[in-house]
Amino acid sequence: MTAPGTKRYALTIEFDGTPFMGLQRQPHGPSVQQALEDAAKAVTGEDVTLHSAGRTDTGVHALAMRSHMDIEKDIAPFRLMEALNYHLRPNPVAVLACEEVAGDWHARFSCIERRYVYRIASRRAPLTLAKNRAWQVPQELDHNAMHRAAQALVGQHDFTTFRSVQCQAASPLKTLDRLDVERVDGFYGDEIRIYAEARSFLHHQVRSMVGCLALVGMGRWEEEQVAEALAARDRQALGLNAPPHGLYFVEAIYPDEA
Amino acid sequence: MTAPGTKRYALTIEFDGTPFMGLQRQPHGPSVQQALEDAAKAVTGEDVTLHSAGRTDTGVHALAMRSHMDIEKDIAPFRLMEALNYHLRPNPVAVLACEEVAGDWHARFSCIERRYVYRIASRRAPLTLAKNRAWQVPQELDHNAMHRAAQALVGQHDFTTFRSVQCQAASPLKTLDRLDVERVDGFYGDEIRIYAEARSFLHHQVRSMVGCLALVGMGRWEEEQVAEALAARDRQALGLNAPPHGLYFVEAIYPDEA
Repeated sequence: MTAPGTKRYALTIEFDGTPFMGLQRQPHGPSVQQALEDAAKAVTGEDVTLHSAGRTDTGVHALAMRSHMDIEKDIAPFRLMEALNYHLRPNPVAVLACEEVAGDWHARFSCIERRYVYRIASRRAPLTLAKNRAWQVPQELDHNAMHRAAQALVGQHDFTTFRSVQCQAASPLKTLDRLDVERVDGFYGDEIRIYAEARSFLHHQVRSMVGCLALVGMGRWEEEQVAEALAARDRQALGLNAPPHGLYFVEAIYPDEA
Repeated sequence: MTAPGTKRYALTIEFDGTPFMGLQRQPHGPSVQQALEDAAKAVTGEDVTLHSAGRTDTGVHALAMRSHMDIEKDIAPFRLMEALNYHLRPNPVAVLACEEVAGDWHARFSCIERRYVYRIASRRAPLTLAKNRAWQVPQELDHNAMHRAAQALVGQHDFTTFRSVQCQAASPLKTLDRLDVERVDGFYGDEIRIYAEARSFLHHQVRSMVGCLALVGMGRWEEEQVAEALAARDRQALGLNAPPHGLYFVEAIYPDEA
């Protein structure tokens, strides 16, 4: 709940993760959270705390992260959005939408589903326009094999194999609702997109799943090896952790919006 | 024709125009041409000259510029491509394809059609992931009105209104084969794309046409004013020149590929 005299504002945030140590505030470098809290301080004079649906690593992007902050100053949501965007410059962070919400709405705890997309550019030449926006893989990838192999991961499983050793979640049990692999004719050329959807994810889970699927796409792993890696429940069974710069947080779902 | 003892290589080139003074070599700053000629020198030891289908301004991008260079060193096209890409780093220029062509094939003079795409992001918030990749217009744009107005420019016309004062073309007469405006659900969100196609264009022609269409989209110009601006044959009648960073050279067509 909000403190007396404050209002809660829900924000939809887009950011280029390249220059940040991640979304969450870090003692040793710039973060998206710090950029937003500094902008809010400039607008309101208040020390506010940003709460967000997800935590993202260094280099990971967001098309529509959902966050909230509590503010005492009486300010219309549209004006707050405009003022935050003004003070966020030149940081590559933008507030796409802002609305006042009930005091019991929480960007992290009210969120019931999180969606990520991972982009792979399968080509020999280095990326130019999509540099830091996709993972360049020089091999040709069989996206149909990747999609078939991915289906072994959908459902409730112990995802220990696909979990960072730094992961702080109490349990490695998660329910993956969707893991689809598609080939898309993107503006910068042909690319492979991997769509992952779950109530919540373990630390590095999407990147670890994508890394193993890429091995299948390259023909270095048989399709069955993804299921075997899952069954091993052992981080040592992980084939490859995909780099962060292909990953995008794309949507957070809330009960009233589902 | 190639000089005796040299072979002609056709290149397909992608680049991010942001850090360059344009494609063409400039005395006062970095260019895509210089980056490629320097890379070629590193690979072959030769002083080669790059010829390209189009000239692009500072900040304009290319998805598939076509160029050629003549080289004495005996090198397979695939090896030349890989070596150029190695030496081009860290410039945001990449060779996507390379093939040996006949000595009378010329990237500029053999080209019979050039295609550009212009991207507009119509939103209040500053761009982050698409920064320098599209023109941000804070107003809502009526893309249907833009498309209708654009049709007045298709065909053979005197494009003096849509021509830079620096343009060196002998005649302002050009035949525009296509000018379509579409709304597209892009990866970074909704965007408007303008597709322009002609055998050749005047300097700033696409950006000038896009600028006037944007005024129509904003409701600041009536649709008929585009035709009136064309009929005026006067640079003073131009409403707005769109910025370079939304513009992409996307394709060059040659008789043997048409």
